[in-house]
Amino acid sequence: MTNRGLFVGRFQPFHKGHLEAVKAILKRVDELVMVAGSSQYSHTLDNPFTTGERITMIRRSMEEENISPSKYLIVPVPDLHIHAIWVAQVVGYCPEFDVVYTNEPLTRRLFIEAGYNIEPVPFHRRKIYSSTNIRKRMLIGEGWEELVAESVAEFIKEINGLGRLQDLAKTDKI
Amino acid sequence: MTNRGLFVGRFQPFHKGHLEAVKAILKRVDELVMVAGSSQYSHTLDNPFTTGERITMIRRSMEEENISPSKYLIVPVPDLHIHAIWVAQVVGYCPEFDVVYTNEPLTRRLFIEAGYNIEPVPFHRRKIYSSTNIRKRMLIGEGWEELVAESVAEFIKEINGLGRLQDLAKTDKI
Amino acid sequence: MTNRGLFVGRFQPFHKGHLEAVKAILKRVDELVMVAGSSQYSHTLDNPFTTGERITMIRRSMEEENISPSKYLIVPVPDLHIHAIWVAQVVGYCPEFDVVYTNEPLTRRLFIEAGYNIEPVPFHRRKIYSSTNIRKRMLIGEGWEELVAESVAEFIKEINGLGRLQDLAKTDKI
Amino acid sequence: MTNRGLFVGRFQPFHKGHLEAVKAILKRVDELVMVAGSSQYSHTLDNPFTTGERITMIRRSMEEENISPSKYLIVPVPDLHIHAIWVAQVVGYCPEFDVVYTNEPLTRRLFIEAGYNIEPVPFHRRKIYSSTNIRKRMLIGEGWEELVAESVAEFIKEINGLGRLQDLAKTDKI
Amino acid sequence: MTNRGLFVGRFQPFHKGHLEAVKAILKRVDELVMVAGSSQYSHTLDNPFTTGERITMIRRSMEEENISPSKYLIVPVPDLHIHAIWVAQVVGYCPEFDVVYTNEPLTRRLFIEAGYNIEPVPFHRRKIYSSTNIRKRMLIGEGWEELVAESVAEFIKEINGLGRLQDLAKTDKI
Amino acid sequence: MTNRGLFVGRFQPFHKGHLEAVKAILKRVDELVMVAGSSQYSHTLDNPFTTGERITMIRRSMEEENISPSKYLIVPVPDLHIHAIWVAQVVGYCPEFDVVYTNEPLTRRLFIEAGYNIEPVPFHRRKIYSSTNIRKRMLIGEGWEELVAESVAEFIKEINGLGRLQDLAKTDKI
Repeated sequence: MTNRGLFVGRFQPFHKGHLEAVKAILKRVDELVMVAGSSQYSHTLDNPFTTGERITMIRRSMEEENISPSKYLIVPVPDLHIHAIWVAQVVGYCPEFDVVYTNEPLTRRLFIEAGYNIEPVPFHRRKIYSSTNIRKRMLIGEGWEELVAESVAEFIKEINGLGRLQDLAKTDKI
Repeated sequence: MTNRGLFVGRFQPFHKGHLEAVKAILKRVDELVMVAGSSQYSHTLDNPFTTGERITMIRRSMEEENISPSKYLIVPVPDLHIHAIWVAQVVGYCPEFDVVYTNEPLTRRLFIEAGYNIEPVPFHRRKIYSSTNIRKRMLIGEGWEELVAESVAEFIKEINGLGRLQDLAKTDKI
Repeated sequence: MTNRGLFVGRFQPFHKGHLEAVKAILKRVDELVMVAGSSQYSHTLDNPFTTGERITMIRRSMEEENISPSKYLIVPVPDLHIHAIWVAQVVGYCPEFDVVYTNEPLTRRLFIEAGYNIEPVPFHRRKIYSSTNIRKRMLIGEGWEELVAESVAEFIKEINGLGRLQDLAKTDKI
Repeated sequence: MTNRGLFVGRFQPFHKGHLEAVKAILKRVDELVMVAGSSQYSHTLDNPFTTGERITMIRRSMEEENISPSKYLIVPVPDLHIHAIWVAQVVGYCPEFDVVYTNEPLTRRLFIEAGYNIEPVPFHRRKIYSSTNIRKRMLIGEGWEELVAESVAEFIKEINGLGRLQDLAKTDKI
Repeated sequence: MTNRGLFVGRFQPFHKGHLEAVKAILKRVDELVMVAGSSQYSHTLDNPFTTGERITMIRRSMEEENISPSKYLIVPVPDLHIHAIWVAQVVGYCPEFDVVYTNEPLTRRLFIEAGYNIEPVPFHRRKIYSSTNIRKRMLIGEGWEELVAESVAEFIKEINGLGRLQDLAKTDKI
Repeated sequence: MTNRGLFVGRFQPFHKGHLEAVKAILKRVDELVMVAGSSQYSHTLDNPFTTGERITMIRRSMEEENISPSKYLIVPVPDLHIHAIWVAQVVGYCPEFDVVYTNEPLTRRLFIEAGYNIEPVPFHRRKIYSSTNIRKRMLIGEGWEELVAESVAEFIKEINGLGRLQDLAKTDKI
């Protein structure tokens, strides 16, 4: 029987911390379902990238690290903002899974109340490898490229991700 | 003719202040429709309890105080966040009513513009008997049990409401 | 411990068949949660009555038959048309329940897949006491009053329910 | 005081029957608000044209007939499929109005229940000047151009409306 | 060929700055489509006015300044909060356009990524003629009437817009 | 540069016709994005399987045929029923693509109007290898197993797919 894990995140963007976590989890499960949550959102300061862009980043990172695409799959799940149904929504979108990896308090709580087996995401150097930190560095023009896979850094440049983020940070309010 | 009142609230949680208000209102109307607003929400710091849990709290409180279930009914109404239709939404969900009891400025304003008869909720010791205050006390571990009916305090413990609220207050942002 | 049943229906309108079923179920459970499904709909040929009107019909019928309001409660639940989350949606809106009474194939199937205990609604003379039949009789002007509680027949006249249904059946298509 | 009428329709497409009705109504009111309902829909057999295309058709027809743009305005209103709030939705989207022109049974019924003044749309040769008829003729390749204003016929050709409708009528079901 | 501009705003309320911008833009395009965004919202501190009220304000302002209704049209567009589809949504609601006038960073960014021709709104004395500033002045009771067209000031008084805004600013939180 | 195709379908269920089509398309593109449309639906006669179940079927079929998971990815996309934004929705959910494979007339039309390069899905023996046909055979108890990959037939039995479909076909209407 395949032992399948679920890794819930937004991956805005997908960084080396995520990548190391995936490697660590893949030592414990046969296959990993990566839920790209809030899949309908993009073009905001907290969710700058589209689901298509996030999928591209994840696949390129995985390829760069020689993680076989047979070991993971990515499932975008839209957010309905009705927490009482969130677990059922994820269950409906994903192949059956045995254990949920998440550090996000709400997701963790909802899966616990639904009786699921939860494990923390084994993050490494969390303060540095954090999407929030990376988006902040992108905005203020500090180095962020080292924090994501090389191919992700390239892709973000290809789609002019920094220009997008910096434009979104502007305001016309006075 | 039945004189029916409408009491609009979120009841997160239902407390003794609500209970005293219900008693006071029931001296003026024959029957009270209690709208449990934002019915789709739960598991957030402001809306920790599900509609099912809120209904349980209200019914247990009422029973504890010997308020007959023939005197009130509870109607959960989801929020569509389109204020221009909120009154029509409530009217569609509820039996006909003659007067609206609310202190919430937006609800009050919308019913006034729609030509309804509005009365303030006769709250007693508002600063202490307040859902906001109770949720805050639950979070920081100060006594809150006295502020709700005994059966509500028991129920919140049964469902581990404090654990939920404290979990929701955590963050994985760094 | 209270043994609580869930009765899922649309009650368009609530008729004597429903009423007899409620009586039969109340011999087996202590309390009955009546889910008024598709709560957002009204003013169609299949769903002519608003949730508020349906609540009024149920309460009047129950009162006419001396069924205590402490034995049942009505919970309107909106339909999101996402079947994979329907059970979670109902669970979020209702107090905890032990057994689900329904004859509707989809509802039955969804609760079975979610591991719930299901019982058929003990309907009596189903062909005659049926909401579909009653709406049809209302439309073509055949006697329907006998099929609902007396107070429901009066209420439908009060709100000119027949006029509404007959208007909705008209068409301006040519 | 301006006497303002409301004309509710889908205008799929806007035809000479609509145009004659507008002229007739403008003899009775000072200004006409034309609600383009179901504004979110397009690219179906019943709603082939986008709201933008419908606005273009109405404006070109009006110009062709020398109806001043100061006499009418077009307001697209999305359909929420919750009939109990439809009148409130229209009221929120439109400048205040005094009388509603509609032949559509549901719209008529909803405005009557909300206490509005209703008038039938004074259609002329309804069987021929009908959007349903025009869409049918477009599909089977019978003459339809005479049934719409000349500029509308041109516009539909410009955007290849017939190609769209005929494509939508195809099926890949076997 | 008509050269058509698109002016995206919320117009909460429509003020003299908007009016001057419209005049400036109309020197460059033949016709202006004014998108009244977030069309479903009203009765909040940031979006106090309904779409119907905003349409009334714009039309009265234009009439006051003798801008012909043949030169502009107003198209309310609801916000779906899914930025990746926002441009497609606007395109579906509006007649074809050649250039987009906007200062709002998100709207600007989305139209740029979709390949549209963007121009800044030629605002004049932006700090004073600003909807944010006007709403703030209305709330604190400072003069705001000079900042909108005379007929808009009258209309806001007619509908008691200040009362609404001041009511919405109240709170029942303690 | 990767040449990427998009294959839009509902895959209810994924059958040998889909599988042959994928193989044929993979001779022309480097990578295939499979859009599992109507991703929010399940438990209906037309859409019996959840997105999670559909993903499982596709992955098992591909594995059975030794199609490398590096050659394809599955992207569930919810349907908003607003056709004017459907292409933008798909574009937001998927990695960039060069050509769209679809036989569905609406999808085909929408991508054509948006300027995309469209190709028909190279289906083989379409009348037999059709999801509609398979669901019909499942319902009436005729052989269907040969029409899907062996592992899909097993999976459908594992989840009791036939029981689900047959239950959904029942009715309690009289």
